[in-house]
Amino acid sequence: MADPVSIAVTGAAGQIGYALLFRIASGAMLGNDQPIEIKLLEIPPAMDALRGVVMEIEDCAFPLVRNVVMTDQPEAAFEGVDIAMLVGSRPRGPGMERNDLLEANGAIFTAQGKALNDHAAKDVKVLVVGNPANTNCLIAQRNAPDLDPANFSAMTKLDHNRAIAQLSQKVDGAVEDIKGLAIWGNHSSTMFPDLLGATVNGKPALDAVSQSWYEDEYIPAIQQRGAAIISARGSSSAASAANAAVEHVREWVAGTEDVTSMGIYSNGQYGIQEGLIFSYPVTVSGGTCSVEENRVLNAFAQSKIEATEAELIEERDAVAHLL
Amino acid sequence: MADPVSIAVTGAAGQIGYALLFRIASGAMLGNDQPIEIKLLEIPPAMDALRGVVMEIEDCAFPLVRNVVMTDQPEAAFEGVDIAMLVGSRPRGPGMERNDLLEANGAIFTAQGKALNDHAAKDVKVLVVGNPANTNCLIAQRNAPDLDPANFSAMTKLDHNRAIAQLSQKVDGAVEDIKGLAIWGNHSSTMFPDLLGATVNGKPALDAVSQSWYEDEYIPAIQQRGAAIISARGSSSAASAANAAVEHVREWVAGTEDVTSMGIYSNGQYGIQEGLIFSYPVTVSGGTCSVEENRVLNAFAQSKIEATEAELIEERDAVAHLL
Repeated sequence: MADPVSIAVTGAAGQIGYALLFRIASGAMLGNDQPIEIKLLEIPPAMDALRGVVMEIEDCAFPLVRNVVMTDQPEAAFEGVDIAMLVGSRPRGPGMERNDLLEANGAIFTAQGKALNDHAAKDVKVLVVGNPANTNCLIAQRNAPDLDPANFSAMTKLDHNRAIAQLSQKVDGAVEDIKGLAIWGNHSSTMFPDLLGATVNGKPALDAVSQSWYEDEYIPAIQQRGAAIISARGSSSAASAANAAVEHVREWVAGTEDVTSMGIYSNGQYGIQEGLIFSYPVTVSGGTCSVEENRVLNAFAQSKIEATEAELIEERDAVAHLL
Repeated sequence: MADPVSIAVTGAAGQIGYALLFRIASGAMLGNDQPIEIKLLEIPPAMDALRGVVMEIEDCAFPLVRNVVMTDQPEAAFEGVDIAMLVGSRPRGPGMERNDLLEANGAIFTAQGKALNDHAAKDVKVLVVGNPANTNCLIAQRNAPDLDPANFSAMTKLDHNRAIAQLSQKVDGAVEDIKGLAIWGNHSSTMFPDLLGATVNGKPALDAVSQSWYEDEYIPAIQQRGAAIISARGSSSAASAANAAVEHVREWVAGTEDVTSMGIYSNGQYGIQEGLIFSYPVTVSGGTCSVEENRVLNAFAQSKIEATEAELIEERDAVAHLL
């Protein structure tokens, strides 16, 4: 068997963490032949709950799990890790303004970026799930100057999957009939689900639906889906977010079959400001992510992409002192 | 691709259900080439939460999921199902006596047994997870006279996995070094984790540990593990129970490599009263469960097995009017 891959998960006792860990441990992320070590980071008040989660991992007798570490120190959690899944973040509390939120998370992701820089494997793959994911990722990346910016990513795979699912329902097709769909920009209500390059059974997706449905129903439904889940469940998406995180890392490691969506460090592709963590149509081969080139964008798409870019610039500027 | 397998899950909006559904839907239970249909049963007050869970399943865009049904009617949930995972049950409330608990669950499992009898596929595989699992399973089985009693099972796989994990920690070995371990009897604090037939790296497990550790530490630790999890997490085992349920069904369908533990209809093997749902050392081939024969039991093991049998007889007699 291969050497174990070392995986850090932050916010490990939270709802997404709980849904995520057992899928990782069962082999769903890296395959049934890949032993793993899991390093779990939590804040001190959550360590008892985390101990319970670790007991449950033990109780599964997963053959792939070689070691489980619990800690409240980022330096220990990231020591030598090959993959870091940054799930924990500060949720927006009552009366909290957007800048308060960015600031509270800034402290977390500054510390985690530095710890990754100093302790993780040099080719560590970092996925930020905790919101605001793109800007949290930016903060971590900027605080890890010794790591390649391409090591950092923010999750838009949940939006991607939601967009595929909603389109497949609309056209009464199967999810695997849909190809080429992508999410652009920020993991927020400004993100842009792009059907221009998407196909349904090999035919343009926009031939199968009306432009008005696309603009007035579909895009808002994807953008507001998180709120709809909270309204139905009484709590925010956990298992579907965990599933997206598993798929994000699996594709990053094993490669993509179809184009996917990932928030990655922009090198200026499609005119986006360099250095933003921006969701693009991405393919992965040999562990390297590439932005799909020559995608056709009309004026409508361009305006949507500019709007989500503008939001990311604003978020970046609000945390400029942390970068 | 194969025709979809139809799977019912009860208590689908509960904690175990939530941990279970996404693993089933991702292919972890029946494999990555087996399309599935999922039929979810909940009580009316939980239907909103269930709708949220179904939205999250949609949001994963699982290629294997062909259809998801939500209902509060057992007849609709079990219509034509090939596999029924009965997770929902009435937990013990404050001031509730054991007989009240058996009675409250009796009503649930009587109705579900009848609905399985009249609506499920004739070769349906039924797994009862909801506690008291063995007696709930007995009630369902007795209310389904047209189905083979061998179609019914109660889950002791979580105890089995806990027993393997605790032994592997004690001997500082890997879980796959341990073979032949089994749980006898009731999924309750009387169940008997049997190391007599177990080996560690091919050598008798009881040569690797002392009899006093086995009797005074190990057995109580396995029997009380559920309570220890509640104490640490603040809520009962969910993801580890869901994992055990996935493995139970996977082994029932795909077969076992090593002996496992399943509560099944006793045909009197090892002197157990016929007709009890009793956990035995079991192997599975071609979808058929067989009790491992000629297992050596000493006086200590015999007395433990008799104690757990006595508890199951008492539970059965308390619900005799439902059988």
